[in-house]
Amino acid sequence: MTIPVYIPYFPRGSFKYVNEALESTWVSSQGKFIKLCKEWLEEALGVRHVLLTNNGTAAMHLVAKALKHVHPHIQGILVPNNVYVAAWNAFLYDKEFTLYPIDADIYTWNIDLQKLIDNSDKALAVLFVHNLGNTINLPGLRRFLPDHIFVEDACESFGGTYHNTVFHAGTASLCSGMSFFGNKNVTSGEGGAFLTNDGDLYRYAQKVWGQGSSDKKFIHDILGYNYRMTNVAAAILYGQLKIATDIMEMKAAVFETYAKAFENIDTIKLQQIELGGTHSLWMYGVCIPNSASYDYAKIYFDSMGIDTRPMFYPITYHKHLKQFKCETTVAEFLARTCIILPSYPELALEKKTQQYIIDTVIGYSREEGINV
Amino acid sequence: MTIPVYIPYFPRGSFKYVNEALESTWVSSQGKFIKLCKEWLEEALGVRHVLLTNNGTAAMHLVAKALKHVHPHIQGILVPNNVYVAAWNAFLYDKEFTLYPIDADIYTWNIDLQKLIDNSDKALAVLFVHNLGNTINLPGLRRFLPDHIFVEDACESFGGTYHNTVFHAGTASLCSGMSFFGNKNVTSGEGGAFLTNDGDLYRYAQKVWGQGSSDKKFIHDILGYNYRMTNVAAAILYGQLKIATDIMEMKAAVFETYAKAFENIDTIKLQQIELGGTHSLWMYGVCIPNSASYDYAKIYFDSMGIDTRPMFYPITYHKHLKQFKCETTVAEFLARTCIILPSYPELALEKKTQQYIIDTVIGYSREEGINV
Repeated sequence: MTIPVYIPYFPRGSFKYVNEALESTWVSSQGKFIKLCKEWLEEALGVRHVLLTNNGTAAMHLVAKALKHVHPHIQGILVPNNVYVAAWNAFLYDKEFTLYPIDADIYTWNIDLQKLIDNSDKALAVLFVHNLGNTINLPGLRRFLPDHIFVEDACESFGGTYHNTVFHAGTASLCSGMSFFGNKNVTSGEGGAFLTNDGDLYRYAQKVWGQGSSDKKFIHDILGYNYRMTNVAAAILYGQLKIATDIMEMKAAVFETYAKAFENIDTIKLQQIELGGTHSLWMYGVCIPNSASYDYAKIYFDSMGIDTRPMFYPITYHKHLKQFKCETTVAEFLARTCIILPSYPELALEKKTQQYIIDTVIGYSREEGINV
Repeated sequence: MTIPVYIPYFPRGSFKYVNEALESTWVSSQGKFIKLCKEWLEEALGVRHVLLTNNGTAAMHLVAKALKHVHPHIQGILVPNNVYVAAWNAFLYDKEFTLYPIDADIYTWNIDLQKLIDNSDKALAVLFVHNLGNTINLPGLRRFLPDHIFVEDACESFGGTYHNTVFHAGTASLCSGMSFFGNKNVTSGEGGAFLTNDGDLYRYAQKVWGQGSSDKKFIHDILGYNYRMTNVAAAILYGQLKIATDIMEMKAAVFETYAKAFENIDTIKLQQIELGGTHSLWMYGVCIPNSASYDYAKIYFDSMGIDTRPMFYPITYHKHLKQFKCETTVAEFLARTCIILPSYPELALEKKTQQYIIDTVIGYSREEGINV
């Protein structure tokens, strides 16, 4: 059996809220668990408004709509060159933005902050994405980009913080999107959230999210969507939030074991934590500079019974985004050399399995002739 | 306690599949219930391809995308003048269509078929919506509009048929969208489906639905969305599909009781079934020509402890759709005079409650001075 990259952690009893939701027969977009999750997240993350969505892509579309709503004159947005495709797509759905990709940083695997500052005159807004959970210190960047509007894809960074742990990821920008997909630190199956501290913006996003309804039922006054999370999905999420501390402790142990095993291996480079930020511990990757390609690595790890993922591909690798050119040296290098490893919570309890993954990675990184 | 317009029917045991889905830990977009629902629907509805979505709005957006994909030259679409807002919105998201509304028929409360034929030169495509479940006979219309592309919002017509019961609603057009929202005949909480008999179109829609993924994992080649249904939602739906016959029998009894009670009341007009079509029995409405306004009726029925809904408002009542003008005489008349009554399945077992609703409706329709 293959060791998976991810399995959500559902210990016994973690679904008890789902049965409560089902028994209440509130299975659609109203019900107590939507309120409970919203309040839990607002309190725990220290953000004024949370709007639960049916997935992270929907949340990011709300971010793009919200940015356009507050700053209708903004046409362009600076974006990272290597992220999950939905982060870029969200800004293209309404055909109102042009993307200006900035290449990746070879150490953090996130947007290169120096290059971002050097190219900041290209657009008035910046989309930050915390790749794999490596949380960029947005408040720290403020003094270098005092006039830019920051929006945030926090889909991978539940549990991450910035400004030396003062703020939770997703809470110190105009607004942000979060994901609760099945492979995320906490999950609702499919799900997400829109976060903002701005009350007017929250009300606007809520309107877009809820079919553009006016105050009068069945009368609509803006072009809206159905981006609602169900009460059943929220009940799954609530069970996860209740054990979030346990999940994060297990993931911390998994990350620590990997870090210790790889830190002195000269054929392996690790993702360096952002200055002033913390890692949300979503996914753990290694960079193996002499790996021929990710496709080659995948065949190798598959043959060893280990599931892996590639690092996010550069923007021009996607046919519908080819026009958004960037000098892609670093993102291409990372796409070739990075391998994302299994990091599911219960791996913390499977010491032998994790050791086997570690040995396989070290073996692969040292193998003669992989640089074919 | 107010008598609700709708409560989904979840008899004991109808959630057994949900617990199976949870125990499998397949809570996201993969799992056995997605396959089971897809196959059940394809078989029962007699349609080649069903793609389960996270709601009916998403399904209708896929319909609009699919229409544009096959017929990129089509810029305009003939649409009904009084439908749920998502049916129109779906064609506006991508800013690629203009809507040409056709007024409602005073008898069927659907698009006026004679006016549609008379205005058919305005656009090359037609969106059909089966209001409240009153299924328009699309195959029968074919000879009057031989060259038009038909697409279908079948969100309200699970259980409806056309062409003298030969085809199920949603299966005899280029493609259609269905809804499994909490108030629908069968529900997944939030959910929907895209239906088509065209294999190429199905594969295109599936790609849009699944983030625009190419054959290579994590490489995307078109602008896609996350429109996936979860396995948990599919498990709720599968429980409903298994008892769909029971649900439909109960709803048939509710509709029959209303019809018998109202048929000879001269102050009440009923929705007339489309020629060659059947009614899906989604929601039951009455038209009371001397009702002052729906707002007035609502206050009255609220005071009597009966929840109601208005008939769908004319397109120009929605601020963001004001530019799509139509001579709105009939749709405005229906918006003023129609009242949608409770029609949840278990009302069939609550004879006294239904009789109370009937008496209240008849009383209201005869009351002096309501035409204020």
